[in-house]
Amino acid sequence: MRSPVTSDSALAELACPKCDARLAPSVVTQLCACGSPLLARYDLERAAATLTRQAVRERPDDLWRFHELLPVHDRAHRVSLGERATPTLPVPRAGAAVGISRLCVKDESLLPTGSFKARGAAVGVSKASELGVAAFAMPTNGNAGSAWSAYGRRAGIEAFIAMPKGAPPIHRIECALTGAHVTLVEGVISDAAAVVAGWVRERGLFDASTLKEPYRIEGKKTLGFEIAEQFAWDPPEVIVYPTGGGVGLIGIVKALDELARLGLIGERLPRLVAVQAAGCAPIVRAWQAGLRESTFWEGARTIAFGLTVPKAIGDFLVLDALYRSGGCAVAVDDAAILAAQAALARDDGVLTCPEGAATFAAASELRRSGWIRDGDRVLLINTGAARNTTLVPLRSA
Amino acid sequence: MRSPVTSDSALAELACPKCDARLAPSVVTQLCACGSPLLARYDLERAAATLTRQAVRERPDDLWRFHELLPVHDRAHRVSLGERATPTLPVPRAGAAVGISRLCVKDESLLPTGSFKARGAAVGVSKASELGVAAFAMPTNGNAGSAWSAYGRRAGIEAFIAMPKGAPPIHRIECALTGAHVTLVEGVISDAAAVVAGWVRERGLFDASTLKEPYRIEGKKTLGFEIAEQFAWDPPEVIVYPTGGGVGLIGIVKALDELARLGLIGERLPRLVAVQAAGCAPIVRAWQAGLRESTFWEGARTIAFGLTVPKAIGDFLVLDALYRSGGCAVAVDDAAILAAQAALARDDGVLTCPEGAATFAAASELRRSGWIRDGDRVLLINTGAARNTTLVPLRSA
Repeated sequence: MRSPVTSDSALAELACPKCDARLAPSVVTQLCACGSPLLARYDLERAAATLTRQAVRERPDDLWRFHELLPVHDRAHRVSLGERATPTLPVPRAGAAVGISRLCVKDESLLPTGSFKARGAAVGVSKASELGVAAFAMPTNGNAGSAWSAYGRRAGIEAFIAMPKGAPPIHRIECALTGAHVTLVEGVISDAAAVVAGWVRERGLFDASTLKEPYRIEGKKTLGFEIAEQFAWDPPEVIVYPTGGGVGLIGIVKALDELARLGLIGERLPRLVAVQAAGCAPIVRAWQAGLRESTFWEGARTIAFGLTVPKAIGDFLVLDALYRSGGCAVAVDDAAILAAQAALARDDGVLTCPEGAATFAAASELRRSGWIRDGDRVLLINTGAARNTTLVPLRSA
Repeated sequence: MRSPVTSDSALAELACPKCDARLAPSVVTQLCACGSPLLARYDLERAAATLTRQAVRERPDDLWRFHELLPVHDRAHRVSLGERATPTLPVPRAGAAVGISRLCVKDESLLPTGSFKARGAAVGVSKASELGVAAFAMPTNGNAGSAWSAYGRRAGIEAFIAMPKGAPPIHRIECALTGAHVTLVEGVISDAAAVVAGWVRERGLFDASTLKEPYRIEGKKTLGFEIAEQFAWDPPEVIVYPTGGGVGLIGIVKALDELARLGLIGERLPRLVAVQAAGCAPIVRAWQAGLRESTFWEGARTIAFGLTVPKAIGDFLVLDALYRSGGCAVAVDDAAILAAQAALARDDGVLTCPEGAATFAAASELRRSGWIRDGDRVLLINTGAARNTTLVPLRSA
């Protein structure tokens, strides 16, 4: 690893948002001793010396454009499958149909392996490589497994992946093709997580589960960086995010907070909307009750498989972001998700996964209720490709 | 349409490569009266005035970077789903395993709808929009249907699509979601083409079939433009292309020819390799016999569904490109394709569709035979996402 002086990164320390512990980020780290996720903190003064709007504009628009605020010191450790900034597509006809005149979709399906999980994998695997990790384990609902397996293989890191039997078959195939050790588990992602916890305990594997290491979320921050830049440093009024583990939402807020402290954007946060499925809505239930944490959702079931997360480890960070930003949490049912998927495709030619489509269903509802106001710029996050899902056969095509 | 003086395009005329007829490109045009495809010709002197290496570098790296050599006059007609230049990924471990030290994959799976067909659709639909087309018809093995249906819908153009029943189900679903009228046909793409020909005859629909209108291939040229730029204006020695209809290969050659005439690259063409499946190899059979056209391949069948094209309308252009460039044509069997797909994924983390994987199988064989030489830079074209295919269920994952 290079010395900090020549490093690409202004990474300074790891901090615990619960007990306020501080750790040096020089070795492999998992959770805080208190059980909370750890978050990366940066030397913003150092970052400010080189991270300007002009500098960003002149850099390649890959995920490393804001590299001072990413954790990898030596760019030789960057692992790439060709990931780039994803487009923000206006969807004027779908927007007009529900009374939102300034509606866009950020289309994450154009990332390698077809989903936003490539962001966490690109940065998380790169950092794991820099720290000398040889093998990792993780549970997944599918997209993260495909992404981490592919990036891991590219870095020469061995992958052990547990996924529910009900996950879209494409993911187990992609994981197997890229040489991961895949175990299919009865139940939902929390059951897969229990299997992974056993591996970690017994075999000493690096635990790459959501928020159980501090760098995957740093990759998700690139979503926030891109939003800031694509909206000309004036983020939209509303961002609607399909929330399973919620790391993307936390990452967006962390990115915007850091940019605001650097003076690259203003202090105003977009109002963040966490969308869940009616069949698995622990964050919505907690938000409606004004709570700071969620409770386990029994019998989770929805066609938006990525939203089948009964209890997210980062739930307190998601809820905090909703309260801080004046956001909200909304549940939509499977019928509304399918109708929204059809509407975006039919009206504007934009194909979304069910999780991404859920954001349009939620936005329609929030517009009807008046929560989304006239003139609000509303950004939907389509987290992956339509084809990253279990396909519902058409009766007649 | 703007006057030529302020146009983005140096489009001058349509020319017939068989009978040498010339047509003005100002109205909707299909085949030449002689039955041959028509090809666009540009005023290269006019193009040269603004199309320089420096100018290209400073433009957004979308598909319109070389807009002088694309047919759309008014950028208001450009139809976009966020398409960008695709990455050229080194695959050093897979290369070393077969003795090719400088092996790369151009990964077209990162385009909208997950395949290279987005190129033809983005430019073809934009030009159709500029010419006032209201509805089109086309046969497809799947990828082109998804792409044209999505881009068509974005432009508000109605799509009538015929596809073989055996095409990967994801495509009929995506076409239906984006509002296309989809008809499933018994047989292969030539049977679907017969259905489309009936629609065109009876209903007067615009025929967007491969090479039956002159602009889809212009979109495919962007593949050649990107190769030239990504290889620092010195294209690789060998390009290996999975050849169904072969329009991508023709497009690459047309692009490199135009760039050479503008002095942006040298005269040397890469040696072009047309890869087909052992179960459908009409171009290979024709090339082996030294013929200028292929004959219909009976009983076409391969897991690389996109290669199931028994007789390509542009076969004479593909064969001409092979002879001119000192290239060749190679058939690989399904077992070799699956082994190649697994090797690229396992060795370098790169997921390919079966058609894309076929190029690696062919390159391995050409290296063993000595046709690929020490030090040759070899570029494989992965035409689409692994998931754009009918999935073979794993026995145990």
